Amino acid sequence: MSVSRHPASVPGVRLGAAAAGIRYRDRDDLVLMELAPGTECAGAFTRNAFCAAPVQVARAHLEHHRPRLLVINSGNANAGTGARGLGDAEATCAAGAEQIGCRHEEVLPFSTGVIGEHLPMDRVLHGVAEAGKNLSADGWSRAAEAILTTDTRPKLASLALEAGGRPVIVTAMAKGAGMICPNMATLLAFIATDARISKADLAHCLETSLAHSLNAITVDGDTSTNDACVVAATGAAGGPPLGEDRAALEVFRQGLGKVCEFLAVNLIRDAEGATKLVAVEVEHGRDAEECRRVAYTVAHSPLVKTALYASDANWGRILAAVGRSGLEDMDVGAVSITLGRVCIVRNGEVDPSYRDELGQEAMAAAEITVRISLGRGEASARVWTSDLSHEYVKINAEYRS
Amino acid sequence: MSVSRHPASVPGVRLGAAAAGIRYRDRDDLVLMELAPGTECAGAFTRNAFCAAPVQVARAHLEHHRPRLLVINSGNANAGTGARGLGDAEATCAAGAEQIGCRHEEVLPFSTGVIGEHLPMDRVLHGVAEAGKNLSADGWSRAAEAILTTDTRPKLASLALEAGGRPVIVTAMAKGAGMICPNMATLLAFIATDARISKADLAHCLETSLAHSLNAITVDGDTSTNDACVVAATGAAGGPPLGEDRAALEVFRQGLGKVCEFLAVNLIRDAEGATKLVAVEVEHGRDAEECRRVAYTVAHSPLVKTALYASDANWGRILAAVGRSGLEDMDVGAVSITLGRVCIVRNGEVDPSYRDELGQEAMAAAEITVRISLGRGEASARVWTSDLSHEYVKINAEYRS
Repeated sequence: MSVSRHPASVPGVRLGAAAAGIRYRDRDDLVLMELAPGTECAGAFTRNAFCAAPVQVARAHLEHHRPRLLVINSGNANAGTGARGLGDAEATCAAGAEQIGCRHEEVLPFSTGVIGEHLPMDRVLHGVAEAGKNLSADGWSRAAEAILTTDTRPKLASLALEAGGRPVIVTAMAKGAGMICPNMATLLAFIATDARISKADLAHCLETSLAHSLNAITVDGDTSTNDACVVAATGAAGGPPLGEDRAALEVFRQGLGKVCEFLAVNLIRDAEGATKLVAVEVEHGRDAEECRRVAYTVAHSPLVKTALYASDANWGRILAAVGRSGLEDMDVGAVSITLGRVCIVRNGEVDPSYRDELGQEAMAAAEITVRISLGRGEASARVWTSDLSHEYVKINAEYRS
Repeated sequence: MSVSRHPASVPGVRLGAAAAGIRYRDRDDLVLMELAPGTECAGAFTRNAFCAAPVQVARAHLEHHRPRLLVINSGNANAGTGARGLGDAEATCAAGAEQIGCRHEEVLPFSTGVIGEHLPMDRVLHGVAEAGKNLSADGWSRAAEAILTTDTRPKLASLALEAGGRPVIVTAMAKGAGMICPNMATLLAFIATDARISKADLAHCLETSLAHSLNAITVDGDTSTNDACVVAATGAAGGPPLGEDRAALEVFRQGLGKVCEFLAVNLIRDAEGATKLVAVEVEHGRDAEECRRVAYTVAHSPLVKTALYASDANWGRILAAVGRSGLEDMDVGAVSITLGRVCIVRNGEVDPSYRDELGQEAMAAAEITVRISLGRGEASARVWTSDLSHEYVKINAEYRS
């Protein structure tokens, strides 16, 4: 089973989109995602203390109700907007509920875009009504375009698998190119499946999938106020709940993990100003936590990221980042660093076989793996990141202007 | 008493410089700083686990001996160079010792520049001999130029004060424009004074001074492998040791603090690609540690730094950084953010009086103070940082090429 960019429709799910004019002109910026009655949902949300109004509302609605509709807007994050922002998020839910005939608590709102501005509610409400008119099982591609902000292309992932003897579809879309360093949650990602699965099992599958995918990426170390990921299982595939068959549940969990990893990698490929996809793999650590710490320290280092952009095998910057990551009793004499297939540092020193040409060649690739061995245990962790380019500064110095 | 950029000579201290051709052509890159017999020294060094060979040697020599000579080279950090690097650092000390007639353990070596390359020892030794020929009490300005790497201008600071009824001079030089996020130590900074003071008192004065100056700055969050700061007190001012008069010691300590702060601010003004000097002041926290954590989270955020570069009052990015800084039980409703004199966020929401024009005006200044009140205590902390510009990427994508 391999993940495809072409979205297969998911029985029980319909999507609609509209150009509400919230911030952008002449493009869709509002999406409805309708879920058949009985759909189970699980979600993960940002841990940023300043979480946006829609995050607060979605989290509360999800806790006590089975969602029937997701309403997503791009261009405005409805974050840092206080009580009025909460009211706007609730009003958006009410408008969505009217479209499909459900209760407003059965609607989850999501927003992404500029922080600190109030939603233009007249346009949002108009957009909800417009999007309600074109709900369709084939609406994935249009919806995936509509939720983008600084992204340059949509992120779609679809996987067909067989779980418990039945064909099951998992299709997902995501957005996010900056302010990305998810913390127990993610940017915006919406996953749907026709699998029949309990809410608890779905939540568990999502949590373990995210840990190695959308929660293992960073563009800039900035955790968003609006990160949210929701997985919806309509049950239209039929059969007994997957949880009654451990093997079937595991097949589904792994499939979900593949879809999430596919999204994660594609988010980084399209990160702001990115010219490289970089996997930082840290191994032989005492535990996964310290491996993640080292991996993120390297992945966040502006000096490492600019060297990656320049295709300069300036490995001293990697070594310095490893050294400052704050691990206790680090034995630098046990540390090794490999770039692609080229071993640069062995046991804390330049490998005798290393030549600069080899390093430059490894750095010239568009997809690079930096592998760091700490030589003190059996744990490992992987993080994906992008490089730091002129384009990154351009995008972020000009985003609001 | 106010700090000047013009270096007054310090009785008991002579400096010499030479163009050794270690990496750069046609410029000085090697400095000797000779200290009169009886000079007391204190130092602070990087906490990066991968600390460079000269740092290891300097720390060991300083622990057991009174230094008579500092040898500083730019262009090559002698870091990640293993046993051979340690040997090179010791050989440099031996060559310096020969120049002034002292023991090699009385020499402290310092290196700054590219990581992972061996020192060209023939050139270094030649440079030591050359620099030994022009030792002079007036050598500060030439030395301050010679220790630079990506810096665009020398950093000098000089202060005349009166402590215990006697005139005392404190003069210092520093270098550093990138890989700057000192951790209990700093870049390279060399401070000399003719004050008479015990080693213990000197070390204490240095530690408290650094905490609010060279240990409170960040350019890129990258702690160097070579950070080092040394203060030398020749005692030539005479009189009883300052420690015998608490008031005199305090005057000296405050003076040293001013010199360090002057250096710190000027380092950030000349940070790689910097167009702005930004002070992030966090107040009303529970303790200084959490205030520093919030301040550094804001100061390291690429999104905040690019907004500063663009003079864009995109305060949502500041708010998001505060929110992700990981403070427990943060009450976002108590947080306020002020930019210059403009209050933007009050109690977690946009201040009713705030207008975008006011924010843009505050952001247009070349020196900006971002003040964040956490509204949960009495502690505070201040950190200085620079913005993230096109020039930053250019410098760091091209540094080795």
